Amino acid sequence: MSIAARIEQTLADAVDNARGPGCPPKLASALHYCVFPGGHRIRPQLCLAVAQACGDADPASADAAAAAIELLHCASLAHDDLPCFDDAALRRGKPSAHAEYGAPIAVLAGDALIVLAFQTLAGAACAPQRLAKLVSIVAAGVGAPHGIVAGQAWECESAVPLADYQRAKTGALFVAATAAGAAAAGADAAQWATLGAKLGEAYQVADDLRDVLCDEAELGKPIGQDAARFRPNAAAQLGVAGAKEHLAALLLSAIESIPPCPGAPELRALIQAQTAQFFPERPARAAA
Amino acid sequence: MSIAARIEQTLADAVDNARGPGCPPKLASALHYCVFPGGHRIRPQLCLAVAQACGDADPASADAAAAAIELLHCASLAHDDLPCFDDAALRRGKPSAHAEYGAPIAVLAGDALIVLAFQTLAGAACAPQRLAKLVSIVAAGVGAPHGIVAGQAWECESAVPLADYQRAKTGALFVAATAAGAAAAGADAAQWATLGAKLGEAYQVADDLRDVLCDEAELGKPIGQDAARFRPNAAAQLGVAGAKEHLAALLLSAIESIPPCPGAPELRALIQAQTAQFFPERPARAAA
Repeated sequence: MSIAARIEQTLADAVDNARGPGCPPKLASALHYCVFPGGHRIRPQLCLAVAQACGDADPASADAAAAAIELLHCASLAHDDLPCFDDAALRRGKPSAHAEYGAPIAVLAGDALIVLAFQTLAGAACAPQRLAKLVSIVAAGVGAPHGIVAGQAWECESAVPLADYQRAKTGALFVAATAAGAAAAGADAAQWATLGAKLGEAYQVADDLRDVLCDEAELGKPIGQDAARFRPNAAAQLGVAGAKEHLAALLLSAIESIPPCPGAPELRALIQAQTAQFFPERPARAAA
Repeated sequence: MSIAARIEQTLADAVDNARGPGCPPKLASALHYCVFPGGHRIRPQLCLAVAQACGDADPASADAAAAAIELLHCASLAHDDLPCFDDAALRRGKPSAHAEYGAPIAVLAGDALIVLAFQTLAGAACAPQRLAKLVSIVAAGVGAPHGIVAGQAWECESAVPLADYQRAKTGALFVAATAAGAAAAGADAAQWATLGAKLGEAYQVADDLRDVLCDEAELGKPIGQDAARFRPNAAAQLGVAGAKEHLAALLLSAIESIPPCPGAPELRALIQAQTAQFFPERPARAAA
């Protein structure tokens, strides 16, 4: 089965379990809505690609880790789009969870997806010693003090250390993806953190570029949000050309950080192919 | 160490880890605020009491399970009090999380506490086979389709099956408490579900009575909320005397459900002592 098919299957099984008989209908509907159809599934693909590069000795653990990370990403989108945060009406090209179901169900769907992530890990029947490691890695990428929840919480502070903010808001879940992929395959998770951190930083720069360069239909969510919300944006700080250079350098150092492993050449090729889509082709809107 | 001291110590250690260096200051403050000072800590006390009755063979696992359940309860209070749900200004005798920190930090503190619950389980270094069981039990008590998140989601539906609603909203976390306490001690979790279910139902009836009988200062949260929100209330349905009879019968059948175990007599005595506080002494406000 392809990486993409493995991800969709594991996510579908997990969400089906959560929507089982007796689930309140709106919550059941929202759980599916928040996860399907997905975006690029970049984080779970990265997780499984690392597991494969490390030999994929325990595919069920790797699938569960990848699904857990994507469920947590979907939960963060449902909560970040809430009226009390970004108040975004659009996500992945359709109404955001709160726009479709109201804020209460959007809050609860996010909560249930967080729980489902850990439930999915526990249900994977992975080697017992591995589960504690996977739960710890995934939790560190999401919770306090340094996970994506902390990243979102920095937006509620008046003084924000920029590197800490970006590391937590975007980098932490990429680090969890590479580390969990390695741990699921029985490799040393710590050696894979740099790859996740560099790719997370690159993804943030790419996101900043898209926020400046793309239009709303293309992006599937509102554009120009960083300027509107006074959030730091690499393209605004470095210029579009400077940000693209920075992005290329980050991707190079990400690929160079890949530890020796059986599938290193394939992983390098895969990351190069996947991150090609990080570069928007369009000229800046202001210049169009 | 007493049960109460074990709970506070494990909670303090867990929250301190989440508030570690680099945590955004408001989130760090809110995490502590949501957990301390606590309420009666009924669920974690029940969890540890069951573990002790079963021999408490692995106290670190039992402590982690009890703390996880209380962290999830605290998370649910932070989210249930949000403006989009109960919009409660008061909780545990002080401003609710959103009243003190605003809705964004209240959402994020709840999210981080959910994650922290599973992180605490994974960090307990419990017997490896035990961790998967504990995560599954705890997740079932919180997530969809039957946990407390689903219970809250029933309040967003127009047609609500009353028993399903109450089982999910209150019973599920009590079931998780007794089952996790047993599992942490290496006993058969399934045998302990009835005790949790009966105590959860009793607690719900007691809560309904308090909503009708107590005043706000005594309760530490707004009263008369069930009538105001058209939520079912046992005291309103059965009358105060009828609800008290129902409560007494539930507590009796809870105690009778305790499976054979080394510490059964002590557990019976403890539950009798603790549930005595379920009965409000006051006359109904309407009659006062």
